[in-house]
Amino acid sequence: MNVLNVDLGERSYPIFIGCSLSQSTSVLAPYIKGGQVLLVSNETIAPLYMEVLKSIINVPVLNTLVLPDGEQYKTLETLNAVFDALLMHRHDRSTTLIALGGGVIGDMTGFAAACYQRGVNFVQIPTTLLAQVDSSVGGKTAVNHPSGKNMIGAFHQPQCVLIDIETLQSLPDREYRAGLAEVIKYGLITDLAFFVWLEEHMALLLARDEDALLYAIERSCYLKAHVVSEDERESGLRAILNLGHTFGHAIETHEGYGEWLHGEAVAAGMCMAADLSQRLAWISKPDQARVVALFVEAGLPTASPDITPEQFLALMAIDKKALGGEVRLVLLERLGKAVVTADYGAANLMATLSAN
Amino acid sequence: MNVLNVDLGERSYPIFIGCSLSQSTSVLAPYIKGGQVLLVSNETIAPLYMEVLKSIINVPVLNTLVLPDGEQYKTLETLNAVFDALLMHRHDRSTTLIALGGGVIGDMTGFAAACYQRGVNFVQIPTTLLAQVDSSVGGKTAVNHPSGKNMIGAFHQPQCVLIDIETLQSLPDREYRAGLAEVIKYGLITDLAFFVWLEEHMALLLARDEDALLYAIERSCYLKAHVVSEDERESGLRAILNLGHTFGHAIETHEGYGEWLHGEAVAAGMCMAADLSQRLAWISKPDQARVVALFVEAGLPTASPDITPEQFLALMAIDKKALGGEVRLVLLERLGKAVVTADYGAANLMATLSAN
Repeated sequence: MNVLNVDLGERSYPIFIGCSLSQSTSVLAPYIKGGQVLLVSNETIAPLYMEVLKSIINVPVLNTLVLPDGEQYKTLETLNAVFDALLMHRHDRSTTLIALGGGVIGDMTGFAAACYQRGVNFVQIPTTLLAQVDSSVGGKTAVNHPSGKNMIGAFHQPQCVLIDIETLQSLPDREYRAGLAEVIKYGLITDLAFFVWLEEHMALLLARDEDALLYAIERSCYLKAHVVSEDERESGLRAILNLGHTFGHAIETHEGYGEWLHGEAVAAGMCMAADLSQRLAWISKPDQARVVALFVEAGLPTASPDITPEQFLALMAIDKKALGGEVRLVLLERLGKAVVTADYGAANLMATLSAN
Repeated sequence: MNVLNVDLGERSYPIFIGCSLSQSTSVLAPYIKGGQVLLVSNETIAPLYMEVLKSIINVPVLNTLVLPDGEQYKTLETLNAVFDALLMHRHDRSTTLIALGGGVIGDMTGFAAACYQRGVNFVQIPTTLLAQVDSSVGGKTAVNHPSGKNMIGAFHQPQCVLIDIETLQSLPDREYRAGLAEVIKYGLITDLAFFVWLEEHMALLLARDEDALLYAIERSCYLKAHVVSEDERESGLRAILNLGHTFGHAIETHEGYGEWLHGEAVAAGMCMAADLSQRLAWISKPDQARVVALFVEAGLPTASPDITPEQFLALMAIDKKALGGEVRLVLLERLGKAVVTADYGAANLMATLSAN
């Protein structure tokens, strides 16, 4: 088992990577402070892992809540179901919420923990690759609003994150590949060597080789933790984590939540960001081709669905990264270095949106 | 105009007390960072002050939202109406939410500001005495859940608070007196000299004398700010601000939100806390009589409505201050000094609940 510390001052916390859930009693125990725990999961994950999780937690009050599975349930209404459960079972301020599932469960449970009685303890046990490398680091929690993703949320750091790589063996292929999109992202934005490693090891990762996975997950969490610890509240540097996300969110919104997986939309979005970066002559055509080739090998989309440039612009304007109406984008200064900029030229953006 | 600084490190902010709203353009301007503002008020307050407030704010995008008036609307559903308005008018992360109204508007608008895009700027213009001396200091924001008050919320500090004492002249008498309950509380929990001042000046306060009000509000804010700055996240000392609140919340829940005003319920609750403190021989019978006499002079209830001790206990157990099932109460060690304790003896508590 590897331990990675996310350094956020008094809100620092450890990520335990590669421990088997069934053997995690002593790993978890120090992070459950009070005598009450609510386990939150969904209909897909609960049958697989809820029993083993229950068996390793020893507290007087242990309640469970199983939510419907899917991004379309990441709403204020579902959030309220978490509050209902907490109040029905009389959980107080010392309670701990444990999220068992993917990003949706993690985001909602974390937001519920941020708001319940103005903040209670929170532990994350992410069971998808996407959640393991993305939502488990950084403390972003949220629900969606009909007008936009993650519009309502909070920064709330967990007490700890426990990543059991074995849970990935049960992940559907499409979801697994979508998670790889974010792994590739870390190489692209901040670590060329990791990008090269991914080019060399993609076949092993697709075979879900445990050693390759352990390295890829730990490296991803490390890179994200480094960016987050520099900028916890996303005032600057952290925005590079959104490479491909402005385009990607536009695709998700246009297609309707759940049609494209988040990672799929972001993969296409990153290819669009690479295209725009190449038009600015920041990266070369061969570099752009390497980016596209890696996403192709990972079985991910490399272009958006049929959306007109005008529709794209309209969808992008509502994105959270729009500051005062000016759309700032994350682009590649070179492979392994992303920057946030509004200095790309409207004509270049239109060319990328039209080419796609 | 007096300025009081609430010292919370990088989250410090000023409270401007005694400035006329119509002359506050330059006071407010430095605290509105972006080009977008949403003014949130209710049906009672908006007709009185919304126009003058709009006239002193100069930003490109100025939207207003008028909510129904009353504690029964302090819900997740009404909160969502704030998010709807923000998204409909395409407010981004640099927006400022301004709460114009009493505690309900302040709590909800503040919570909306805490959650919208994970946190945006917030300015408070409290128009009731209760909001001016209580909710304007401390950063507590929340909405209610059917099972309990303020169960869903966040700590979110405003950029500044602007208190126009003239707005109190339009406040209904019952609401005004309810606000005095919290003013008296500050004397009771932490400042005997202020309690004595209140005994001497209650007649002037009831006449809404502006000099007396200016002093009482500033002293109340100062005392609360001092407690809050020692304990921003309510892990210890801050709990003394809840004198009378565990009893008071039980009364409010039993009677149904809105039947008893918050300040009325807390006044009765403080008299119950004084009763229990006297049974413990922490305060004398004459001291207890002084407490009751001041609430009587302020025209506030000094006993709970008809609630059996058993009902009381059941209602109190759900209160946020219940830690691990043990109900901690705020009691008076002496006049001018409150403590949080579970060391009062069940029999004494039952005696207080029965006597009431």
